[in-house]
Amino acid sequence: TGVTVIKVEMGGPGSSPCASCKLLRRRCAKDCIFAPYFPPDDPHKFAIVHKVFGASNVSKMLQELPVHQRADAVNSLVFEANARVRDPVYGCVGAISYLQNQVSQLQMQLAVAQAEILCIQMQQEPNLHEVSTSLLLCYVEKEKMGTSFV
Amino acid sequence: TGVTVIKVEMGGPGSSPCASCKLLRRRCAKDCIFAPYFPPDDPHKFAIVHKVFGASNVSKMLQELPVHQRADAVNSLVFEANARVRDPVYGCVGAISYLQNQVSQLQMQLAVAQAEILCIQMQQEPNLHEVSTSLLLCYVEKEKMGTSFV
Repeated sequence: TGVTVIKVEMGGPGSSPCASCKLLRRRCAKDCIFAPYFPPDDPHKFAIVHKVFGASNVSKMLQELPVHQRADAVNSLVFEANARVRDPVYGCVGAISYLQNQVSQLQMQLAVAQAEILCIQMQQEPNLHEVSTSLLLCYVEKEKMGTSFV
Repeated sequence: TGVTVIKVEMGGPGSSPCASCKLLRRRCAKDCIFAPYFPPDDPHKFAIVHKVFGASNVSKMLQELPVHQRADAVNSLVFEANARVRDPVYGCVGAISYLQNQVSQLQMQLAVAQAEILCIQMQQEPNLHEVSTSLLLCYVEKEKMGTSFV
């Protein structure tokens, strides 16, 4: 009679707390902001964003977003956190640097190839009309080939 | 005679606390881990990494790195934090996605241009042996490119 029952709202009867609440050792409320994105069977996913961004920062970031954008935000935070753990000095920024270099190199190779095409065209054919027609046919053929490379 | 003097070690006589200690309202010790990278005249630089990663996480990350890599780590953290504030859903990962698309497009354009060069060469050159050799080389090149899509 003197006993007070404290009702704890959980994700559902028999459901285990989400990975975040498990790691933070707190009860997982029905409206837990982490629960939809950090299921209990993937503890690493939360552990890594917690390590890099901190649970309270992640919670704040999610709260500032509309619900339909939160899953994408969580995925990008997990990606960033993984990159930071793999490369503690440069993290994601290392990948950006690498890709920027790759873009520069490809732009240069493309410019060289296009210059080569122009050069061959000029050497090959003084009749510009004929050249442009055959080049057009060739381009259409190669476009088909190009897509199959992907 | 009953007065105890508490000596506070600062960055130097008359120097102001670093941007981090100023924001966190704590005294800036001589060996403050933030001081070399967050000068008092650039309060935004610390404010943004504090907002996204949290001061204690940044401090831990820096402590785990050798001194000569810490400036690079701070710069990449500042870059990441700025990207996250600008794009709260995708952050840096948005830039990575964009660059990956750009790389794919350029690889395709380059493949098309190189195929176009081959096509012109084939029209120009009736020697089939030479053509088949250059086609083979071209194929090998495209195969290499293909693997970099992954």
